[in-house]
Amino acid sequence: MGHASLVEFIPARGLRVDVISLGPKGEIWIVECKSSRADFATDRKWQGYLDFCDRYFWAVDADFPIDLLPAESGLIVADAYGAEIQRMPQETRLAAARRNKLTREFARSAALRMQGLADPESLSGPF
Amino acid sequence: MGHASLVEFIPARGLRVDVISLGPKGEIWIVECKSSRADFATDRKWQGYLDFCDRYFWAVDADFPIDLLPAESGLIVADAYGAEIQRMPQETRLAAARRNKLTREFARSAALRMQGLADPESLSGPF
Repeated sequence: MGHASLVEFIPARGLRVDVISLGPKGEIWIVECKSSRADFATDRKWQGYLDFCDRYFWAVDADFPIDLLPAESGLIVADAYGAEIQRMPQETRLAAARRNKLTREFARSAALRMQGLADPESLSGPF
Repeated sequence: MGHASLVEFIPARGLRVDVISLGPKGEIWIVECKSSRADFATDRKWQGYLDFCDRYFWAVDADFPIDLLPAESGLIVADAYGAEIQRMPQETRLAAARRNKLTREFARSAALRMQGLADPESLSGPF
């Protein structure tokens, strides 16, 4: 899809998403990975993530009971070899100010993580 | 300074800067490193970099003949232990559209480089 992604990103205080990705045109997608029915049922935060992306997806494996998942969310099904988008959700475009702030924080977070790999002592997290 | 930086960044086709950095408020700085008089004298591209940052700096070591450098540029002097801003240049604010595009490309470049470290086969550069 040409997206560049970052794991464990914090879009706002108290929220941490599994994957955020940035497309070639600046599209921001969030992907939450769910391993089981219980994992989904106990998630109290995911609706808060919707305000921080243009499209929201669940990523599950082939055994997951997908009927549990909201039909309006995107769906990615993964196996050991890769992952495929099975349902592309409607886009809900972010407002420009929020998009700019998220993109800036994505950029800083990715670069600071790179710097941390090169020079671990230079950093204090999380970012 | 709280900046997150990336080396060898391509702000536009045909241009490649030594360091680009992104500050907490979205400030974009470019730093060019020069090792010697000849290195500076043969640089035919640096004026093109001015259009892609809010502030532009030279980074040199203590032996460099700094009188060569344009007085309006920023100056960073480095040694084996660190680097210090010796002259902060005036800010020339980027237009919003260019800032957004640069920030997006910075973000994608940093994240794709991270992905490349984790999974080298996934990538083809440069970015």
